[in-house]
Amino acid sequence: MEKLATGEKVLVQPQVVRLFDEENPLRLSCGEELSPVDVTFETYGALSPQRDNAVLAVHALTGSAHAAFWHSPEDREPGWWHGLIGPDKALDPARHFILCANLLGSRYGTTGPTSRNPRTGRIYGPDFPAVTVRDMARVQKALLDYLEIPRLQAVIGGSLGAMVVWRLAVDYPDLAETVVPIAGDIAASAWVIALNEVARQAIYLDPHWNELAGPNRLPVSGPGLKLARMIAMISYRSEISFQNRFGRERMPGVPANGGGDSPHFQVESYLHHQGDKLVARFDPFTYITLTRAMDEHDVARGYGSPEAALSRIAAQVAVIGIDTDRLFFAHELRATVARLQKLGVRASYGELRSPHGHDAFLMEFGQLNRLVREILER
Amino acid sequence: MEKLATGEKVLVQPQVVRLFDEENPLRLSCGEELSPVDVTFETYGALSPQRDNAVLAVHALTGSAHAAFWHSPEDREPGWWHGLIGPDKALDPARHFILCANLLGSRYGTTGPTSRNPRTGRIYGPDFPAVTVRDMARVQKALLDYLEIPRLQAVIGGSLGAMVVWRLAVDYPDLAETVVPIAGDIAASAWVIALNEVARQAIYLDPHWNELAGPNRLPVSGPGLKLARMIAMISYRSEISFQNRFGRERMPGVPANGGGDSPHFQVESYLHHQGDKLVARFDPFTYITLTRAMDEHDVARGYGSPEAALSRIAAQVAVIGIDTDRLFFAHELRATVARLQKLGVRASYGELRSPHGHDAFLMEFGQLNRLVREILER
Repeated sequence: MEKLATGEKVLVQPQVVRLFDEENPLRLSCGEELSPVDVTFETYGALSPQRDNAVLAVHALTGSAHAAFWHSPEDREPGWWHGLIGPDKALDPARHFILCANLLGSRYGTTGPTSRNPRTGRIYGPDFPAVTVRDMARVQKALLDYLEIPRLQAVIGGSLGAMVVWRLAVDYPDLAETVVPIAGDIAASAWVIALNEVARQAIYLDPHWNELAGPNRLPVSGPGLKLARMIAMISYRSEISFQNRFGRERMPGVPANGGGDSPHFQVESYLHHQGDKLVARFDPFTYITLTRAMDEHDVARGYGSPEAALSRIAAQVAVIGIDTDRLFFAHELRATVARLQKLGVRASYGELRSPHGHDAFLMEFGQLNRLVREILER
Repeated sequence: MEKLATGEKVLVQPQVVRLFDEENPLRLSCGEELSPVDVTFETYGALSPQRDNAVLAVHALTGSAHAAFWHSPEDREPGWWHGLIGPDKALDPARHFILCANLLGSRYGTTGPTSRNPRTGRIYGPDFPAVTVRDMARVQKALLDYLEIPRLQAVIGGSLGAMVVWRLAVDYPDLAETVVPIAGDIAASAWVIALNEVARQAIYLDPHWNELAGPNRLPVSGPGLKLARMIAMISYRSEISFQNRFGRERMPGVPANGGGDSPHFQVESYLHHQGDKLVARFDPFTYITLTRAMDEHDVARGYGSPEAALSRIAAQVAVIGIDTDRLFFAHELRATVARLQKLGVRASYGELRSPHGHDAFLMEFGQLNRLVREILER
């Protein structure tokens, strides 16, 4: 952690490393080779002399390596898991060496669809090859090798991040002492695939979705991506959180029983706002690449069967579910834990009790800190 | 029931009646007047001399008056609630006089956005006024008045149909002995509104959504309506039914880890198929009109508070929920029943146990017949 305290904000800087290049390209699951592959990551805390205190945090669909603290004094928001990472939190830089790397195929400093294709001089866009969660795990492992971290105290991640956690646990059984997949399962369910598909169809419906605008040929993010996010946002929350927060509160000035295309209710306006926010920071190519990777996620791939894959796991597995999760249902994660236990894998199930649905892993920090602290102290 | 048995298929014919005209227009909740208002309905069985065996069945969002039996010997499918209506079923034409009318604002023979506006000579399209569930209930009541049915043994309906059932129970307390709202609540929740809004946005995103094609200026139903249906279909099913039916079954010929825009998994293809099927029989104007009516549904409207509205109910209320419903959650319906009981309204809760989610009310006929039969015999 390159830190510089200014006032109360601890500042951190991302680092970038080229892990694969033309002489050593990344061979993807799809068969294609990708080079160069740059990875952006952040670290908080210091690696112990025994190199035994490293914890890898893995981000979700639209996340980045910026997991905690601030990049600049002007930043309004800290990193996405600031509630779990920090002094006296479950992941404490005073005790742990915490790493977070932007995933392969993302757009926040790691090679992905908005990176420049060296063979054309333009961004990849729709030509970026299909990547899988296995490829993402492979690149995370390559980063650990580069940093000379042979073993992790823990790997922890939520949603797509949990998928990467599962894949690391299966593909690299000796890597981690403990793995903590949160609100994410060993394979994408038909329900997850269905929700990702309607989001992608929203993008395809936007007539301009695959245009590249401006001199840098950056992707045009428009109403298609916005709608994709609006759909996904419903699945990230729950009927309870929506009811608590919005109920049937109307938009001011919209007559009851009136027609018109604009939002009548606060909950609609909230979804529009969330859609607009994503459009300002994301792009449709990356969205499609990453949701396809989610869909294709299945730890069985490459091992013949789920049992063959799961039997490889040597780490302690501490699954965390969310009682109101409407994307990765708690009953599904409990079934996965039972399956692991039947195979003799050390596996436990903990649960966030929350009205907030899937996104509770980004919100319920009181409970999450207690659960993760207890898991790491086992 | 005008019936004509040919082989094993009992044939029925819809009837049409003009309930409101220029001299007696329908004054809508939005303040506008609508005329003419034609209503298409079907009946099965005969009204008893005491006129005390009438049961009104109310259809859901994209349903019609065709609730049971067949229109022609060539029809492959009978009406939408054929599993509940028929000889020896809970609603038996030998004992009950069963009615089902196409709802106001729909497109199957009752006045709605695809009807011809007499003032322009063209179909209403986007100019059709906003209608509410209260207006729909009003028109159902007008049909009963026309048929000289002063009192119903029961009113029963699912989803949007349940909303109409609730509204009839509140607005016309003396109308029904028993009301059976299935998988639908006293008001649209923020969750329901959210799902309807993303479906509408899918329609708006289709660049041709509001074009009227051909000499009859019929609405163009395209990919926007298709996507709206795909989104809604997810909410009508459950993660369990999708997993049971599709799991991670792939489409033939799509390579694992491959890219491409076409469906990789069976569940995606299923959603596309469902979307295409609706496009062949529905239109975006009607979809928007009816989802807006759903959103605006709140029995409190017009009575000051939910309690004031619910206290009006004189019928026995037999709510039926579905344990895996991901649109109208069982815990919400149980809470409504508790609320009614607290107000002294005779209310009970029954539940369909099903993997199928919201659509279980169109599928679990074994359980549904048992529940409804027991309710009607109370």
